[in-house]
Amino acid sequence: MTHDEKAAAVHAYIAAFAANDPEAVRQIFSAGARVEDPVGSPAHVGIEAIVEFYTRSMAMKPKLQLEGPIRTAANSAAFAFSVVFEGTDMAVEVIDIFEFDEEGKVSSMRAYFAPENMKGFPQDWSA
Amino acid sequence: MTHDEKAAAVHAYIAAFAANDPEAVRQIFSAGARVEDPVGSPAHVGIEAIVEFYTRSMAMKPKLQLEGPIRTAANSAAFAFSVVFEGTDMAVEVIDIFEFDEEGKVSSMRAYFAPENMKGFPQDWSA
Repeated sequence: MTHDEKAAAVHAYIAAFAANDPEAVRQIFSAGARVEDPVGSPAHVGIEAIVEFYTRSMAMKPKLQLEGPIRTAANSAAFAFSVVFEGTDMAVEVIDIFEFDEEGKVSSMRAYFAPENMKGFPQDWSA
Repeated sequence: MTHDEKAAAVHAYIAAFAANDPEAVRQIFSAGARVEDPVGSPAHVGIEAIVEFYTRSMAMKPKLQLEGPIRTAANSAAFAFSVVFEGTDMAVEVIDIFEFDEEGKVSSMRAYFAPENMKGFPQDWSA
């Protein structure tokens, strides 16, 4: 799997949010994929649980703004972005790691962010 | 370990490069730490192998420029940066993941970058 193929999967993931289309993630993740978002929280395992997770996640119509170039290595992609919510000042600063299987599907996604990476929320999560 | 404590370790790591001081990494990594740089390459395991690796790495006097906020989650920190080499146009775009042990030392470092993330090198590594 080339750098560009891994980057294309990242862009498809960002496009799913742009279109507010949780079903689109079926084309990106493998049947048995694992999503840990954020790292340290209980994982969503299997495509049905993952689609359900993104359906809930997209309820607030979050948009992903890529910050800097996508990095890749071996069967992985790493990318920094902010999650923004239209019409608000809220943003979450995140770095995601994708791992790909041999068929080019994402088999593992881990999202790194802490309360300190959540900006402009009405509640101070870092308290 | 708080977000700020994890961020401080990242800043100490960047400062070690700024000072061109490979010995400084002894304060950052645990005795049995594992460094995989880039992901997919053979790991450097144990602090002596790690200091030796950074001694070689720092021979070209690389400097790390942080790109955006440090993200943390659970026992991890994730950060995007460019490695630049003074007096040259060369740069490597990298995302690092640190994992910390219970004593606040880095027990695992993984660096994500590909030839496509190496800019301005005399040889086209992406060929």
